[in-house]
Order: sequence, then structure tokens, then C-alpha cells
Amino acid sequence: MRHVLTIAAVATLPVLSPVAAWAEAPDDAALMEEAQALFEPIPDQVPDVRGNAVTREKIDLGRMLFFDPRLSASHLLSCNTCHNLAMGGDDNLETSIGHGWQAGPRNSPTVYNAVFNIAQFWDGRAADLKEQAKGPIQAGVEMNNQPAMVVETLSSMPAYVEYFTAAFPGDDDPVTFDNVARAIEAFEATLITPAAPFDQFLEGNADALTEQEKRGLRTFIDTGCVACHAGVNLGGEAYYPFGVVERPGADILPPEDKGRFAVTDTATDEYVFRSPTLRNVALTKPYFHAGRVWDLTQAVAVMGVAQLGEDLNEDQVDDIVAFLHTLTGEAPEVIVPVLPASSVDTPRPAPMDE
Amino acid sequence: MRHVLTIAAVATLPVLSPVAAWAEAPDDAALMEEAQALFEPIPDQVPDVRGNAVTREKIDLGRMLFFDPRLSASHLLSCNTCHNLAMGGDDNLETSIGHGWQAGPRNSPTVYNAVFNIAQFWDGRAADLKEQAKGPIQAGVEMNNQPAMVVETLSSMPAYVEYFTAAFPGDDDPVTFDNVARAIEAFEATLITPAAPFDQFLEGNADALTEQEKRGLRTFIDTGCVACHAGVNLGGEAYYPFGVVERPGADILPPEDKGRFAVTDTATDEYVFRSPTLRNVALTKPYFHAGRVWDLTQAVAVMGVAQLGEDLNEDQVDDIVAFLHTLTGEAPEVIVPVLPASSVDTPRPAPMDE
Repeated sequence: MRHVLTIAAVATLPVLSPVAAWAEAPDDAALMEEAQALFEPIPDQVPDVRGNAVTREKIDLGRMLFFDPRLSASHLLSCNTCHNLAMGGDDNLETSIGHGWQAGPRNSPTVYNAVFNIAQFWDGRAADLKEQAKGPIQAGVEMNNQPAMVVETLSSMPAYVEYFTAAFPGDDDPVTFDNVARAIEAFEATLITPAAPFDQFLEGNADALTEQEKRGLRTFIDTGCVACHAGVNLGGEAYYPFGVVERPGADILPPEDKGRFAVTDTATDEYVFRSPTLRNVALTKPYFHAGRVWDLTQAVAVMGVAQLGEDLNEDQVDDIVAFLHTLTGEAPEVIVPVLPASSVDTPRPAPMDE
Repeated sequence: MRHVLTIAAVATLPVLSPVAAWAEAPDDAALMEEAQALFEPIPDQVPDVRGNAVTREKIDLGRMLFFDPRLSASHLLSCNTCHNLAMGGDDNLETSIGHGWQAGPRNSPTVYNAVFNIAQFWDGRAADLKEQAKGPIQAGVEMNNQPAMVVETLSSMPAYVEYFTAAFPGDDDPVTFDNVARAIEAFEATLITPAAPFDQFLEGNADALTEQEKRGLRTFIDTGCVACHAGVNLGGEAYYPFGVVERPGADILPPEDKGRFAVTDTATDEYVFRSPTLRNVALTKPYFHAGRVWDLTQAVAVMGVAQLGEDLNEDQVDDIVAFLHTLTGEAPEVIVPVLPASSVDTPRPAPMDE
């Protein structure tokens, strides 16, 4: 990261110079080389997941579980409710709506490419997707369920028992809450969005970005955005204070949510969050952990002031926004699963007032 | 229908006789012939829809709209929330949960094969799927939205405007609430489930049903179930009092919901409902308009007493239930759509307390 900031400090902005027109090709080559050193394209193969072999059987089971509302106490809410695969992998709400129409505390992060994040949740409190998957199922304001009830529910359906047995062939007792999480993680590992224009650029196609998008990428690198948004996910790799230079107002950064401080109980972690991925950011409004900013242009301007101490001018913001739109990749084709039918032994949904 | 009841009155039950073993083939032929006169298989082609040509463009648009929660005021609920294609085309809840976590008044009917029903809703108050689609979007206890807001929302997304233009090429102003309904209807016309074991039997394969399932079919015909559950959908064709012979208790038939009476204001329509399709009935518990019966076995027994005045014995009920399981067809492969991204002009979701 320090390397990047050094580059930013000494960089000129050649694309804004009057000689840019005839110097286009060499500039492209330099920009591409810099970008290739800072970022990585989304692979077109499902990535490995530590400690959880991603098999076809686990993926199929995980897809069912991801879409099954019977993982929630109400039997209404599924993983897909808040991480909607049709809408960029989140719910496009300020904060999520959960059990009993309660408002969740934070904006739902996208599930697409989440497998590439260093840890999960805005405060990184889950080490991986397996651990993450267990959170919302049990959270009172989300799915409001209990592990034992999840296992009882799934065990009551012979087809689910078969699918778990096939997905976890070595297990004596395959229908467990841990295996629910493993299967969901395996499915989520398939939720990657390769082939975005920016990926094509990283893979050597200089024409994959327009001139404005390239200017945006240049500005993104040179002003220092890249310090927190690099790598394959353009973010998701480390933790930073929201307000490195200047803390935003309470409308954007509500004072009661101190971020990672709640996880580490360390004073320096107050208002620290994991930087989000910028992959598919054009699809995942509203922005920031509190979800109070609906306009990507405003979000970029806020970041300039808060994180970089820089009042980006209108052209710079527009160029960066144009670049961010090149991060929209190709969503995998997901077929709606046919879920096992409840049996007479399947526990019924909780009464609506519970 | 009268013809059927006459058959029932004079029928013997040959499969229960001691000579059934060697008489199997002729019995099969007779049963098949009778069944073919009473029922029709689900076609393997998308059916025509009156006044709404089902085009590829309309289907694709309709699929998006069906899955788009921005048709609801909250931006949380979509058609698929209560007519979940993963769960037999309904929500498997007693009555649906809608805006603000309100309980809806009736059990959500399946959207699968709904195109074959004579009219829509339990009381038939919508003539077709087009008219039906407009109901829940506007109902305060369901999606709680307004037609003008739906049109404003969809018009704010250039990609949606393109899709509407392609789906309704003759229209000067294609993004209308009527066209929303037409597109959803076109998509829903594709939601048919052919190739159930019973369809295979109707198409001439005597081995598609087991002996018990055939006994169930025989009992289903002979006791008179078929009077209200015939045709392609085994139901959905006409209106009948719930309690032709004996009205069920308030636990199953809540006295405050007088059914079709609310539509026609005619005394003879008190507690009259459209008979539901029995297609995929094994997937769509709980049962009846109030959704109070969770066990298909109990549902069949209740129907015997209420509609036929007959205490079906345990074997008869079990046989009918086995037959009903043969009505589970093959769900179409539906790919989760990639929805257009909201723009800066897209109206935001209603505040959570509205």
C-alpha cells in the first residue's frame, strides 16, 4: 500500500495534458501495467475455499439452503431475501428488513465475490463465509432462528437428508448446522462475477475501457482510492477508519455504530470497518455501512473528503464513477432450486407475533 | 359433473375384490379410459393466453417483474415472496406475510398452472392472471404500492424502458401498469408443470402409477371428489360451497370470511370458493383458503365429510393421498433474472413505518 501512495504522490496526470491525443497508446500501456500490479481479474473458475472442498453436491445443496425460507423462524426470509442474486447480491435497502419487519443495524453487503474478502460482515467478525452464514440465521432482527430448529426442520424432510448425505459422504450424521454453513459457503463460492470490462482491461484489452473510464482509473490510482480498494475485489482486504482524514457527519456515520470496536474492544478500532469490495458497486446502492447515501457520485465525493482529505472536482468524481461502472461483471446463471417439500414432521413457522 | 356423480353411485370397487390380482390389466384399461374422459394432461407447450400474445420478450420482462421487490412499497416483497417458485409456487404459510409484517387474509394459491384456472384468487374476483397481478401490488397488507409509483419506478431505469419497448413494440408509451400485468401474465403462462406421473398415466402409460395410486384414483373418482376436481387442473374450474354437505368448524372455515359472497353479494355465495387445483398439492401445504390444515391426510378426510358427507376410511384416505402425490409435475427451469439497477431517479423504498 505504501508503494501505491508513493506513486500517487509523484504521479502527473498525462491524460489531462494537451499531448494526450497522440500519446494515447503509451499511456494505455503504462496504465495497464500499473493496474495489473495493483489489481487482479476475477477468475473464471470457482475458487478454492479453505477447509471446505467445493463439490457439485455441496453447491447444489447450498443453493437450496440459500433460497430456503424455512431456515428462518417465520419461514418467510431466506439468505436471498437480503442477498438478492437478482439485485447485485444485496437488497438495495438502507438497512435490511428482518423478522417482524425489524430494521437491521447495517446495510447488507453483496454476496457476489464475497469469497474473496479477507473476512465477512462490515466489521470482519466472521472469518469466512461458513461462519458468516450462521450469523443472520440466528440474529433476532434477521431470521431469528436457532441451530437446533434448523437441524430439526431439515432432518424432517427425507430429500434434504439425502442431499446432505451426498454432500457430506464421510459424516455419520450429515444434517448439522455446521454442514448447513459449509454447503452455503460452497454455493457462495460460485457467486463470482468475472468478465467485467475492467477485468478485460486487466487481461490486456486496452479497448475494454473508454477514455473517460481510463481517466477514472488513473484518478482512482493517483488520488489514493487504491490504498483501501485494491486486489481482486478492489476492497475487502483490510480494515480502515471511516474518516481517515475527516469523519463524516452523523447522517452518514451514525455515532452509535462504532464498527470494529465492538469486535476487538480496542480504542483505535472505533469507527473502523472492513473496506467493502467495489465489484458491482453500480448495482449495490445505497452505500456505506449505514446505507444513507443513494448516489454513487455523492459516495465518491464523500470518500474523497473523508478518506483522502481531498475535494475531488466534478470531472474527477464523474471519471471515477465511470470507472466504477466498469466493475460490473457477469453474474452466474443461477437456477431457482426445487426445494424438498415439508413433511408432516416439519416444524411449522413461528407464530407471527413471536 | 352429474354424469360423474351417477358413475360414483353405481360403481363397484373392483381393485378391492379378491379377483383383482389377475384382473389387473383390464381394470387398468377401464380406469385409464375413465380418467382420460375426466382429466387432461398438462400440455408440454406454453398455452395461449386470451388477449395477450405470449412472446419471448414479454416472458423475459415478466420474469424480471415477478422477481423484482421494487414493485412493492418497501422494495422487499416480490411476487415470488408469496408465490415462491422454489416451494411449489406458494409460500407454505397459513396466510401470507405482507407489508409491515401484516398477516394476509387467505392462504396464497400456487402460481404453477394457475393459467388453467377459470379465474384467479380463492373467490375468483380476478378474471385472469393479468387482473390478478394488479391485486397484491396494490393491497395494503401485501405489497402496498400504487400503480403510478410502479410506473415511475420502472420508468426511472433505462434498461426497463428498453425491455418494455421490446415487449410492447406497438405502444407509444410502453411502461404502463397494464403492461406490467401483461408481462407478468405472459411469464406466469410458462409456469406449468407437465410430466407428473398422473400425466404419464393419462397419456397411456399404465405403469406410471402404482397399485395404491390407482386405487386412490379409483376412489377419487367413485366417491365424487372428481365432481369439483376434474379437468386439466383437477380443480380451478368452478365455484362450490365449502361444506356442500356439512360445514367444517370455525378452526378450518373462519366464519368472518364468506368467500365469493364478497364478490357477488349473493346469499347463495356465502362460503363459496373456487375449487383449488390439486396439481402439486403435495408441495403446497397448508391447505384450504384459511391455511389451517397442515396435513394432506387430514385435508382429504375433511373434504370427505364436508363435501361428500362421507367418512372415508383410513385406507381410502391413504390411497387418495398416494394418488394426489402423483400430481407433482416437473417445474420449469427458471433462471434468476439480472434486474436493471436503480438509477438516481428511482424512487426510494417507503420508510419502514409507513
